[in-house]
Amino acid sequence: MGVPQFKNIRRTYGFDEVAIAPGLLTINPDQTSINFTLGDLEFAIPILASAMDAAVSPKLAAIIGKLGGLGVLNLEGLWGRYDDPEAVLWEIGEAPKEEATTVLQKIYSAPIQERLLGQRVQQIKESNVTCAIALTPQNTKRLAPIAVEAGADVLVVQSTVTTAKHISKSYRGLIFSELVEQIKIPVVVGNCVSYEASLELMETGIQGILVGIGPGAACTSREVVGIGVPQVTATMDCAAAREEYYRRTGRYVSIITDGGIRTGGEMCKAIVSGADAVMLGTPIAQATEAPGHGYNWGMASPHPALPRGIRIHVGTRAPLEQILCGPSTVTDGTMNLVGALQASMGMVGAFTIKEFQQAELVLAPDIKAEGKSFQIAQVN
Amino acid sequence: MGVPQFKNIRRTYGFDEVAIAPGLLTINPDQTSINFTLGDLEFAIPILASAMDAAVSPKLAAIIGKLGGLGVLNLEGLWGRYDDPEAVLWEIGEAPKEEATTVLQKIYSAPIQERLLGQRVQQIKESNVTCAIALTPQNTKRLAPIAVEAGADVLVVQSTVTTAKHISKSYRGLIFSELVEQIKIPVVVGNCVSYEASLELMETGIQGILVGIGPGAACTSREVVGIGVPQVTATMDCAAAREEYYRRTGRYVSIITDGGIRTGGEMCKAIVSGADAVMLGTPIAQATEAPGHGYNWGMASPHPALPRGIRIHVGTRAPLEQILCGPSTVTDGTMNLVGALQASMGMVGAFTIKEFQQAELVLAPDIKAEGKSFQIAQVN
Amino acid sequence: MGVPQFKNIRRTYGFDEVAIAPGLLTINPDQTSINFTLGDLEFAIPILASAMDAAVSPKLAAIIGKLGGLGVLNLEGLWGRYDDPEAVLWEIGEAPKEEATTVLQKIYSAPIQERLLGQRVQQIKESNVTCAIALTPQNTKRLAPIAVEAGADVLVVQSTVTTAKHISKSYRGLIFSELVEQIKIPVVVGNCVSYEASLELMETGIQGILVGIGPGAACTSREVVGIGVPQVTATMDCAAAREEYYRRTGRYVSIITDGGIRTGGEMCKAIVSGADAVMLGTPIAQATEAPGHGYNWGMASPHPALPRGIRIHVGTRAPLEQILCGPSTVTDGTMNLVGALQASMGMVGAFTIKEFQQAELVLAPDIKAEGKSFQIAQVN
Amino acid sequence: MGVPQFKNIRRTYGFDEVAIAPGLLTINPDQTSINFTLGDLEFAIPILASAMDAAVSPKLAAIIGKLGGLGVLNLEGLWGRYDDPEAVLWEIGEAPKEEATTVLQKIYSAPIQERLLGQRVQQIKESNVTCAIALTPQNTKRLAPIAVEAGADVLVVQSTVTTAKHISKSYRGLIFSELVEQIKIPVVVGNCVSYEASLELMETGIQGILVGIGPGAACTSREVVGIGVPQVTATMDCAAAREEYYRRTGRYVSIITDGGIRTGGEMCKAIVSGADAVMLGTPIAQATEAPGHGYNWGMASPHPALPRGIRIHVGTRAPLEQILCGPSTVTDGTMNLVGALQASMGMVGAFTIKEFQQAELVLAPDIKAEGKSFQIAQVN
Repeated sequence: MGVPQFKNIRRTYGFDEVAIAPGLLTINPDQTSINFTLGDLEFAIPILASAMDAAVSPKLAAIIGKLGGLGVLNLEGLWGRYDDPEAVLWEIGEAPKEEATTVLQKIYSAPIQERLLGQRVQQIKESNVTCAIALTPQNTKRLAPIAVEAGADVLVVQSTVTTAKHISKSYRGLIFSELVEQIKIPVVVGNCVSYEASLELMETGIQGILVGIGPGAACTSREVVGIGVPQVTATMDCAAAREEYYRRTGRYVSIITDGGIRTGGEMCKAIVSGADAVMLGTPIAQATEAPGHGYNWGMASPHPALPRGIRIHVGTRAPLEQILCGPSTVTDGTMNLVGALQASMGMVGAFTIKEFQQAELVLAPDIKAEGKSFQIAQVN
Repeated sequence: MGVPQFKNIRRTYGFDEVAIAPGLLTINPDQTSINFTLGDLEFAIPILASAMDAAVSPKLAAIIGKLGGLGVLNLEGLWGRYDDPEAVLWEIGEAPKEEATTVLQKIYSAPIQERLLGQRVQQIKESNVTCAIALTPQNTKRLAPIAVEAGADVLVVQSTVTTAKHISKSYRGLIFSELVEQIKIPVVVGNCVSYEASLELMETGIQGILVGIGPGAACTSREVVGIGVPQVTATMDCAAAREEYYRRTGRYVSIITDGGIRTGGEMCKAIVSGADAVMLGTPIAQATEAPGHGYNWGMASPHPALPRGIRIHVGTRAPLEQILCGPSTVTDGTMNLVGALQASMGMVGAFTIKEFQQAELVLAPDIKAEGKSFQIAQVN
Repeated sequence: MGVPQFKNIRRTYGFDEVAIAPGLLTINPDQTSINFTLGDLEFAIPILASAMDAAVSPKLAAIIGKLGGLGVLNLEGLWGRYDDPEAVLWEIGEAPKEEATTVLQKIYSAPIQERLLGQRVQQIKESNVTCAIALTPQNTKRLAPIAVEAGADVLVVQSTVTTAKHISKSYRGLIFSELVEQIKIPVVVGNCVSYEASLELMETGIQGILVGIGPGAACTSREVVGIGVPQVTATMDCAAAREEYYRRTGRYVSIITDGGIRTGGEMCKAIVSGADAVMLGTPIAQATEAPGHGYNWGMASPHPALPRGIRIHVGTRAPLEQILCGPSTVTDGTMNLVGALQASMGMVGAFTIKEFQQAELVLAPDIKAEGKSFQIAQVN
Repeated sequence: MGVPQFKNIRRTYGFDEVAIAPGLLTINPDQTSINFTLGDLEFAIPILASAMDAAVSPKLAAIIGKLGGLGVLNLEGLWGRYDDPEAVLWEIGEAPKEEATTVLQKIYSAPIQERLLGQRVQQIKESNVTCAIALTPQNTKRLAPIAVEAGADVLVVQSTVTTAKHISKSYRGLIFSELVEQIKIPVVVGNCVSYEASLELMETGIQGILVGIGPGAACTSREVVGIGVPQVTATMDCAAAREEYYRRTGRYVSIITDGGIRTGGEMCKAIVSGADAVMLGTPIAQATEAPGHGYNWGMASPHPALPRGIRIHVGTRAPLEQILCGPSTVTDGTMNLVGALQASMGMVGAFTIKEFQQAELVLAPDIKAEGKSFQIAQVN
């Protein structure tokens, strides 16, 4: 049209728009290997449980650890604020729908109690599993040493958007290179969605990056602040940074897609988009053993002035082992995620996660999903 | 295909299709500054209240003025036609749904009373806030001097589509360059959606442009007359004209996105699309103090022969201060719009509105949004 | 990807995806002229009523003729088969929903009675309006002379897809160049959707082309036989053929968009896509005077073996004059279509239909419309 | 943007997004010929019935064979596991909705009984129709000889994804070139969706390829394992391979689109995408004579650990002859599929399936389909 453009708008992709295309080879699912490495730590399955209070308690961290994955406990959540989080969790679950946000705001206004942090780490360690804990950038310098001293194995530094450079009036921004040098356990940072930002984070020496801003079921960042990048593009961009950083340095930083994954299909698409592992919220919160009693809410939900995310009813479906490793009794992809991953790898002939990352993705708007809901409506 | 094309169709973008992508820096929200300038006038927050009778009364103009924004009173609306608009507003709110359009048509057939215009300006000025009033192009030459004499500080000349050139049988088209010279207060003109049309308007000497044709919740221009350009593209094109005009002349004309903004996310996207400020209708009409008592309707709704826009029930949510400045008790982005703007700027590392205009936009079809509306519908 | 392509798939556009963009000039609606020419005939408004039995009776043809448009009576429909179509129309309207198709199949199995054809033409002529009648290609050679002799002014030859070349075992294909020479009244042919096919039809000497395959509300060609081209692209392609044919020959063949138009906005978009006039079905069937008593069905609906199209309930809204010329009491664009056309032309500064055809179209997915329709469905 | 891309994402197309565009010629439907060839076998209509237990019993295979098509019996389904499948079919149909998957898992855990396989083949052969049976790749080497010896005419080797190369720990992968040489009846293999994979399969000597992964109404592969390619693109790619293979070798391998086809329109689009024939599931399961008694489920639905696909209620509509060959009493395209195919071929002027494959496809998002549901909601 000859009209000057104020800016370009780049097309990005989400899970619902893409599908995996098979290739020239198929293999039996039992020939696939799906282990995941974070720094020196190795995990049998490439699944982390989100640092959400409705998903990970010390007990749930023990269960997922024994299944081969990694649960991340939010030390700034209820377990870092209350001696008896169980009572508080029931209070949240029992709040009427219209008061849920106000109840969350009130409950999370209780202060973090430093004396609880070490206790929580020890609770997890007593189960003989890897202990991962999460902190926000603001509190990391102050609280991380406590957790490390108590025996934490992995530190996750997480906020809605985390970059290598942060400017604040009230505190000196966290310097990740200093942190990595100081605490000596693997550091995972997030969330992040871009090539350049993840490259800058990798250069600080961290071991993993959480990918995903705005996509989770319990997150409304896109509505509230307009920010968000769909997970397929976000994962592809951060994976491209991982490849470039590895090419330059020989050091491999893990990419973990976090948010928006509820089904085996979505987990598979995340890995084909370049992820080394995924972080799950809703599927974990649906486990019989989950602390949320059938509810889930995000870490930004209780913000005192600008809550982002609602308490959603996710239901209780099955023991965590069955959700993750099957057998499945449902056909919508929400159970036996590990089995689904291995079946999918078999169908595209991938022996390893690295090979699966090379599978083909196609853009295929999910019209059937719409049709299906129509069909169901017809039938009932 | 080798077939001659009758015309090109250009792809345009709306709020629901795009999202803001974070960058390499994050800052604390309290470090952002969000002031807005219109000619010589400066405002603490970049928010105008729409010249809709359900949104702005003299009283509401006072409230938003004290919060740092600017309310625009429609002098050709109920306040310019009735001595006691309050009674008429109740009549509109109480009309049964199926009769609402007919009732609006009847009520707005009452004549404009010139003697009321100055009174309304004075009512606003008594509150010691900036007074902005709106007129249509047809009546501007006749009525603007009355408002200016009474002390109006800003003149908004507004109709569905306004261009620098208008041809009419019944009156000589308004010449904006003459108007600007004559009335000596800042003139804002709209609505407009294109690069060329806004460039021509800027050349007449006006201080601001309202961007948006067809996008508002209470507007059905697209259904009735087929006309409309989505707000992201419209704002980007008018912002490109502003940059070009500034490059040529050194004079900065403000771009104000008007219509279709209900959430913090949409306000943020408007600014990242290039807006200097936004004009809000529905969020203002939802304030406890709004004259519409929970309803809203557009300025074209009462047209006697071709009404465009319906009376919609928007509900009453909270005092205006809470809607604009928080704290929010909801998580859908409809409260604490100023807080959302500052949070969003923090996440992309923008200290000022001008820096925020430089953030990245991605095309990311809002699949989740559809799901959400479904969920809400299910629940009610 | 380097994979050979079996065929290209061309992107096409429908009404819901596009919108009209304003330009640099606006004019008052009362300055527009909207007349339409077909051969030597001139009409005050560019609107034809569809040759559907639920839309056009001899009486309705008289009413629309007096309003300045043109009604087309289907001589192979009920008026060509029954002495008393009124009784049959009530029977159709009163059939239970699930039996409607079967009832239509039975009713339309009655034979065409040649003696009725001339009577119907005379009924229309008695009202002193232009008389247009429709026939299918199979029956045109046999029945057209009867209608012409009785005084018909316009012959419409119409089937789902009509081309200049048709091959049949049972009858020699209709040769349009022979027909045009023989009957001496303007011939309109359709339906057609492509540049080449309409160019070939123009070369036979016809005066108008009906554009549209698959888009009407009462048509299910796309579901049943997979065939259909959205109206914006179809109209643009046929309009490009009209321009090319005019450039070559100096003869102007009118393009009439037929199907899928229910609102003023859609009528405006059809013209901006290049149409000289539009043919309406549903809006006409909604008139108080329409023969369908609030129902509508397509010409292919009663096919004995492969019915395409359902009897849909369109309701009765207002007298035809009000639907076409206003005033409107609704805001969804379904009333005062002429007023909407003139308002739209005013907003883009077009004095004539030819100038309006030059307006800009943008691709702007109608996200708002979807949300709204969903809401309505839930509420009822 | 200058950012390195992790991988490309190719745009693919499904039935709902495309439509067939007419050309320059029309012919009468009775002049079309629609026969289909598989190796040396010829069929009057290009329709196969899916190897699903709810669709094909020996009795149904006889009926479709007499209509000119080909039914495929799944020898690893109920007819290969139970002496009296009828009783089991009723048990499935009567299971409450929420237990359907569990019931299927239990029923299909019964072992395959080799003694039944020959009996089933003979049951079909007694009706003097072509007998086609389906096996999975794992069991083909063991069970195919039994079926061939009993007189099977066509062998279908089918699993979700089948390639020329398969690697397994527990059994040596099936070598198709050996199989083809050994059994001497036409072999059809599937499912497959890509150019390269189908080319490799053709090179093994097989006679037909089933195209389609993830699209069927009773399939949830896309949700569970993320895999799927929409049918228009999948068919086009495999058809391109067929053309290339034919160009190289002079041997013609048939492409059969399998899955996602419920209407005449979809069948027509499959053929215009390049298919020689289609395989139907839901439309067959809706026949009065179908074994599923109004229900349908996929072959992967009873998987013990990872079921993919649900038991859906498809209803019972009409005798198979009426569903396939009409007359139709409905207008949604689900009856008289053969009539629809011939009508569609007539509208684009195609005398044969090969000519129909050359028709034009356009990308035309099916907005009307959404509109239709709106209409229905209004009416009820």
